[in-house]
Amino acid sequence: MPRELLLNAFHMNTVGHQSPGLWAHPRDRSRDYTKLSYWTDLAKTLERGLFDGLFLADVLGVYDVYGGSRDAAVRHAIQVPVNDPLMLVPAMAMVTGHLGFGVTCTLSYEPPYPFARRMSTLDHLTEGRIGWNIVTGYLDSAAKGMGLAGQASHDRRYDAAEDYLKVVYKLWEDSWDDDAVRADPVARVYADPAKVRRVRHDGEFYKVDAIHLSEPSPQRTPVLYQAGASGRGREFAAAHAECVFINGPSTNVVGPYVADIRGRAVAAGRAADDVRVFTLATVVVAPTEAAALDKLADYRSYVNHDASLALLSGWTGIDFSTYGPDDILTHVRTEAMRSAVDGFTSADPGRTWTVRELAEHVGIGGRGPVFVGSPTQVADQMIAWADAAGVDGFNLAYAVMPESFVDFVDLVVPELQARGRVKRAYRPGSLREKLFGLGPRLPATHPARNPIPLAP
Amino acid sequence: MPRELLLNAFHMNTVGHQSPGLWAHPRDRSRDYTKLSYWTDLAKTLERGLFDGLFLADVLGVYDVYGGSRDAAVRHAIQVPVNDPLMLVPAMAMVTGHLGFGVTCTLSYEPPYPFARRMSTLDHLTEGRIGWNIVTGYLDSAAKGMGLAGQASHDRRYDAAEDYLKVVYKLWEDSWDDDAVRADPVARVYADPAKVRRVRHDGEFYKVDAIHLSEPSPQRTPVLYQAGASGRGREFAAAHAECVFINGPSTNVVGPYVADIRGRAVAAGRAADDVRVFTLATVVVAPTEAAALDKLADYRSYVNHDASLALLSGWTGIDFSTYGPDDILTHVRTEAMRSAVDGFTSADPGRTWTVRELAEHVGIGGRGPVFVGSPTQVADQMIAWADAAGVDGFNLAYAVMPESFVDFVDLVVPELQARGRVKRAYRPGSLREKLFGLGPRLPATHPARNPIPLAP
Repeated sequence: MPRELLLNAFHMNTVGHQSPGLWAHPRDRSRDYTKLSYWTDLAKTLERGLFDGLFLADVLGVYDVYGGSRDAAVRHAIQVPVNDPLMLVPAMAMVTGHLGFGVTCTLSYEPPYPFARRMSTLDHLTEGRIGWNIVTGYLDSAAKGMGLAGQASHDRRYDAAEDYLKVVYKLWEDSWDDDAVRADPVARVYADPAKVRRVRHDGEFYKVDAIHLSEPSPQRTPVLYQAGASGRGREFAAAHAECVFINGPSTNVVGPYVADIRGRAVAAGRAADDVRVFTLATVVVAPTEAAALDKLADYRSYVNHDASLALLSGWTGIDFSTYGPDDILTHVRTEAMRSAVDGFTSADPGRTWTVRELAEHVGIGGRGPVFVGSPTQVADQMIAWADAAGVDGFNLAYAVMPESFVDFVDLVVPELQARGRVKRAYRPGSLREKLFGLGPRLPATHPARNPIPLAP
Repeated sequence: MPRELLLNAFHMNTVGHQSPGLWAHPRDRSRDYTKLSYWTDLAKTLERGLFDGLFLADVLGVYDVYGGSRDAAVRHAIQVPVNDPLMLVPAMAMVTGHLGFGVTCTLSYEPPYPFARRMSTLDHLTEGRIGWNIVTGYLDSAAKGMGLAGQASHDRRYDAAEDYLKVVYKLWEDSWDDDAVRADPVARVYADPAKVRRVRHDGEFYKVDAIHLSEPSPQRTPVLYQAGASGRGREFAAAHAECVFINGPSTNVVGPYVADIRGRAVAAGRAADDVRVFTLATVVVAPTEAAALDKLADYRSYVNHDASLALLSGWTGIDFSTYGPDDILTHVRTEAMRSAVDGFTSADPGRTWTVRELAEHVGIGGRGPVFVGSPTQVADQMIAWADAAGVDGFNLAYAVMPESFVDFVDLVVPELQARGRVKRAYRPGSLREKLFGLGPRLPATHPARNPIPLAP
């Protein structure tokens, strides 16, 4: 029996996430991102559609590669202004009972001791519905915000990330025994001091000598998300991640990546199935195919090409302002550009892409496929895509907020349910239990659960 | 006409804040601190009682001075476990429309760049109801959590704090012009890049070279709280703070402190009235005096003396386990102890205090006075106390949660309103507007508003 697809919604505490220019669409409400009701309304829509989670991206810098300036990003609200994602979770948790929250936090700019407490706090307040997307940062502008000349090298960032995880794993998993908290008002003992141990870590990057400040939360370690694409990033994801997010415009790009990640997980002593893989996609749906195509054309008319290329330049480090709109990617590409745009050129090897076409494609939800059509057509496309690529589900970007999600919930979810490919009710329990059907804690094969000697 | 008193509630994201042992009282609900509803219920109670704000304390370490061990703190839940305070605000903001939130964040352990964004995010989401209690930390155990051998010296911490404030002031006040955000869908311009400037700071402790990531929030700089007691701390508070929190058991301790702070503010070029001073107090009230005295006796029977001394030892750095319960403070006191307990011994110079009596007093709400009696008696005491000490209002600790606040709102607030000493409705606008009756921004005399040259 084919597996149910997992559904994540993809957003960010910002105006223009992955649909550059579409904030100006008359039905778009992204400008309300500073209001709590914008987020609680979204959370209620997603829970109505049985989404497993809302994934909140984040950057701690600005996109200033395009033309060597941040001007295009600021003018078109390309992920700037961008507010803190964590602060959105408690209010959304209040109005929902099942939706999970995967939040991006850049470990490079956040000391592990207070960070571990912040995540435990959210795991308590959401009753076990929090996840953490582990990122090391990719913008030099963020490093400058932190007073540094620039980022550490890619591999050094992963070295630091490995050290960071050791600290937070120890704090989350090992400092408080399961039965440390007695909360016994008759004996007048809240916690047993003998069952609360300090964590001592003396690593290359991080040191700590303290007990975890939070008592054990439902999941202890939040559900771990990662999106590494490089070799080192994939090794890291295969070792640590429970959910992996990937981008790619076609199954022949994404499929081999999925197989590779699962293979690496097995090599690391985990099960292939211990990693849930979500791939980016955008859906433009209407009751009929014709109406959906009209909707797509309407959306496209709001895509801003400068804004789109500013986003793509920030992601790839390539300054797309140095190319003309009609330049063909296969002609202009350098070695660096090849890795950035290979997905597009290899998706359909017979097709050529101009810079303009790339900007237009990225303008509707970023670097994933765009599924367009009637509800049955979209369901067909999604199922075929997922089965061909071997992914567990989709990370759905929006074109217009909240219309893209409302449309999906109203039109596509019932169709996928009718085919047995989306659940009809939430499972009970924490986010980890909902995703994996096991307990709220990490499985024993995960590195966080490996016994680590602790100080008395 | 006598001024209306300002009302703050004092709590912490923990089980035992300032009533050691009372979590075990049959009507106490502090053990629900991990649940969102515990906090939203509290927020609704406070807004019903027209409280100006909820003040959330925080520590990033444990109290381990008493007996040289954290055991008493862990056993009796003396501010451990302690969760992150910021995460409570969005949910409480959702269920209220006026209540302010003063949140303690230890600047020593949080880089200024992401911190400034976190506060701006909360100022947006609360629509201008956020305040920041500026602390540098006082526990060596917190420094160890951060991988340090111990804290920096008291004066160096204040040097660093001054540098930190320069960075966050520039980010909040100077990076985005008031009219930088156009959000004009016709012109398709979200923000004018010429009106968004990067902040460059190259201080002894902190460096930054970046634009602020958040667009201007209603207050820009959060309302600034501080609680400095030392000479350097008072200078700092007089220069920066809009609200000052103080502790003291009697008006002859608190009064001179208030006069001193206001004098220092004037010397710093501000108005005496630019600083609102809140003093710690606990209220035990019942419909009759006899019922209130019974309630106090009942509460006292739950005070745990070990727990109380563990708290006091952490605050003062004095290990009270080395004294017997019947030791008299005037006999045992050292120079260090004098400063810690002077408030108690000088409050009534004719009285002697034993260690047991001190523990018992601190057990009901900490180091402030305890006002006990019928509603009219409590109102009398509060008004006399506030007028004698020259404070603007009270920072009300609880003995039992939420009973202490519910009792106060139901019984004392109407009495204070009848006497014209508590408002009958909230003022419109941001927290700063409610507190000072002026605009949402800091006044021009505040150091954050001094023009600072910025890079283009």
